[in-house]
Amino acid sequence: MAKVKLTDLVLRDAHQSLFATRMVTDDMLPIAAKLDKVGYYALEAWGGATFDSAIRFLNEDPWDRLKKLHAALPNTPIMMLLRGQNLLGYRHYADDVVAKFVETAAKDGVGIFRIFDALNDPRNFKAATEAAKKTGKHVQAAISYATTPFHTIDKYVELAKQFADMGVDSLCIKDMAGLLKPFDAYDLVKAIKKAVDLPLEIHSHSTTGMSVSTLEKAAEAGADILDTVISSLSMGTSHSPTETMVEIFKGTEYDTGLDINLLLEIASYFREVRKHYKKFESSFLGADTRILVSQVPGGMLSNLESQLKEQGASDKIDDVLKEIAVVQKDFGYPPLVTPTSQIVGTQAVFNVLFGRYNKLTGESMDLLVGKYGKTPADKNSEVVKKALEALKMEKEITHRPADDIPNEYGKLEEETKKLLGTDTVSTEDVLTYAMFPKVAPDFFKNRSKGPVKFTAEDAAPAATPAAAAPA
Amino acid sequence: MAKVKLTDLVLRDAHQSLFATRMVTDDMLPIAAKLDKVGYYALEAWGGATFDSAIRFLNEDPWDRLKKLHAALPNTPIMMLLRGQNLLGYRHYADDVVAKFVETAAKDGVGIFRIFDALNDPRNFKAATEAAKKTGKHVQAAISYATTPFHTIDKYVELAKQFADMGVDSLCIKDMAGLLKPFDAYDLVKAIKKAVDLPLEIHSHSTTGMSVSTLEKAAEAGADILDTVISSLSMGTSHSPTETMVEIFKGTEYDTGLDINLLLEIASYFREVRKHYKKFESSFLGADTRILVSQVPGGMLSNLESQLKEQGASDKIDDVLKEIAVVQKDFGYPPLVTPTSQIVGTQAVFNVLFGRYNKLTGESMDLLVGKYGKTPADKNSEVVKKALEALKMEKEITHRPADDIPNEYGKLEEETKKLLGTDTVSTEDVLTYAMFPKVAPDFFKNRSKGPVKFTAEDAAPAATPAAAAPA
Ligand SMILES: [Co+2]
Ligand SMILES: [Co+2]
Repeated sequence: MAKVKLTDLVLRDAHQSLFATRMVTDDMLPIAAKLDKVGYYALEAWGGATFDSAIRFLNEDPWDRLKKLHAALPNTPIMMLLRGQNLLGYRHYADDVVAKFVETAAKDGVGIFRIFDALNDPRNFKAATEAAKKTGKHVQAAISYATTPFHTIDKYVELAKQFADMGVDSLCIKDMAGLLKPFDAYDLVKAIKKAVDLPLEIHSHSTTGMSVSTLEKAAEAGADILDTVISSLSMGTSHSPTETMVEIFKGTEYDTGLDINLLLEIASYFREVRKHYKKFESSFLGADTRILVSQVPGGMLSNLESQLKEQGASDKIDDVLKEIAVVQKDFGYPPLVTPTSQIVGTQAVFNVLFGRYNKLTGESMDLLVGKYGKTPADKNSEVVKKALEALKMEKEITHRPADDIPNEYGKLEEETKKLLGTDTVSTEDVLTYAMFPKVAPDFFKNRSKGPVKFTAEDAAPAATPAAAAPA
Repeated sequence: MAKVKLTDLVLRDAHQSLFATRMVTDDMLPIAAKLDKVGYYALEAWGGATFDSAIRFLNEDPWDRLKKLHAALPNTPIMMLLRGQNLLGYRHYADDVVAKFVETAAKDGVGIFRIFDALNDPRNFKAATEAAKKTGKHVQAAISYATTPFHTIDKYVELAKQFADMGVDSLCIKDMAGLLKPFDAYDLVKAIKKAVDLPLEIHSHSTTGMSVSTLEKAAEAGADILDTVISSLSMGTSHSPTETMVEIFKGTEYDTGLDINLLLEIASYFREVRKHYKKFESSFLGADTRILVSQVPGGMLSNLESQLKEQGASDKIDDVLKEIAVVQKDFGYPPLVTPTSQIVGTQAVFNVLFGRYNKLTGESMDLLVGKYGKTPADKNSEVVKKALEALKMEKEITHRPADDIPNEYGKLEEETKKLLGTDTVSTEDVLTYAMFPKVAPDFFKNRSKGPVKFTAEDAAPAATPAAAAPA
């Protein structure tokens, strides 16, 4: 009854977190039959940074990957991670593009849409959720987890209720940085399960070393689904090991019922595959516990350090860390995830170097006037005033940001036709162009050469791998 | 009241598990003042493989390290790991050597003697325990944890009572391989705490990825002290991160009360130190969950694989893994730790290659006739008979093995004098010679040159580091 289900993230978040999202489809397909036999709740295998990485680094068509995986996984739903109105790109899209994207993803193989937004603004979930519901597929709203004075359990419960009212099929607590502590997870899950009658999934990165305990306590509190990764791609900045959770729960009321021997075969396969990507791995020692105090994700910390170094102000790092707390409060307590982590971090650096809010970045202004959506808490009105003045705006945007974006699919289709020099283009190509208009042209040109291939011989460590942040 | 205490293993088990026990004293002393300020229950810093490594690889006097650490840690007890009647060597010593060793270690700085034995035979704890009690220092009996059909909770409780009756000051569950699952830890701790009124410490390696959860559940069940390692040397084959446990318990009834910022400074120090030893690190990916099924520790598995390869029988590994379960049962269910893991493993290989028990190894015979002590369960009498016949013995040894060893300290002292060419020798040198008679001569010769030094420039990976097993 209280049996726990597992979603394995090995085909998406694991390699995004461990080796810069570089895993190619050819390293996925040979193990697909076994993965499909496990009986996972789902396999997260698409979205996040995989789309970008496929066309930018792998010369691989992400839509092609989706179709192939779907064919190879007849019994297991494919989950994708979708950044609300941003889809997989880095700006807000018009609703017609959102609808087309979701519809096409559903047709090509996505079974579960996990939708999130850096500000947890339900309005940024709206178009994607409605489009996904229309396809008949499963829609999951993922709540970005942050630990700020604003983010009480009550606030999360309130959010959960709002998403439930939008008609989503399940909820997820998305803890990108390993901030969710076991006893807090217990209380949070208890409260949400009590308030909302929806399956609840827990996504908690292992960065700080507590994820296994967090998942265990979440299960005790009634979490329905846990996100794990097969052991050989687990831990570090990735996730709790699948087999470990299976063995922890074996014989208890949370027993997953999964076949440990089958899982060990899969672990063994990926132990070899991982060797192909050694040069993209960053060195990660033990656990990184700094974030538990600073609340600043590891990737953000390195960015800040190099920003300060460029300015010859390396000694100011402690001031900046303290200033981040101030900026996060003034900006309405956004969770520190992409893109808000960069916005808050850079503004904190500016505040320390040039005096508090003497210089606002363009992104800070946009966030302050509502262009990213509604921040969780109220913002500092003095700082908002500065942003409005700088942008020559009368007042904040209080409507859904995407309401200001006119439909654009037709225009994007025309541009794609021009780019490809053809009269007809596939919806997939239009959407690829829409996501990454600067990268798509080269990709379209080279696509026919086929994907790159990594082998164990590529294992020499590179200078600085362009690691994508865990998400 | 239920406040949890922490023992940090960074100066012993962490580097023994991660980089072949190579950390030199000069990398410990600069951080000693901060370590001493934390308020740890203890710092495990001596014994285990550190003694062997110091004289064999580091040209460093282990007694000298102990004295220096003791001087640098006035407020924190130094814990040492002692292998019962084996002390830190690889044979049973006479009681007078055991007494001298313990007395000298206490005088030079050990505050807590953690004593263990591969067979959990209380008679192998006797001499060391009595000697340690006589010094007035704290004596802890560590029970090696195994998961076999014999090892029920009742059996562990029985053992715990036996050790309590011997007058030890505290107990430890010593889980070398990461086999102790969270819910099992909960039940085990509850049962032991109910039966025995002694502080209980939990030592559980992170190898399988579940240690943080195991410690958390152990605390819920009433464990008094948890073994952790500062984050930058944590996880993998090492242990749960100290700061992570501190943060998990913060604000709960288990709150450790330790200063997280001080711990982060220590973590930062060891993050740099670890770089000095990169060439000794083995690559460890995520978590190794194989042992949860095979019960065979990772190091043992690699040994078996290379033994089979030498015999051109690499395809027999699955047969050997199955045979290990048979041999372990026939040999009276010894926990698979040094040296029993090697004995059982090699015998399983022999059984598969030459037929079951057609060929007994010398060590198997010794174990079967009682030369290592009493095995936890009854042995297969047919197999014991074979061993007795081969050794031309009438019956098994049922007394304490060390009863057969006449006092030997005087003889060892004379040999040491001869070796050093002096009329007087320090007790420390006699004991060093006693532990490693083959290594000591070279060490004595070169000692005056001083310890080796590792720097970050040594970071190129070596061919095959002589990694010591976690313990
Ligand atoms: Co993630
Ligand atoms: Co150990």
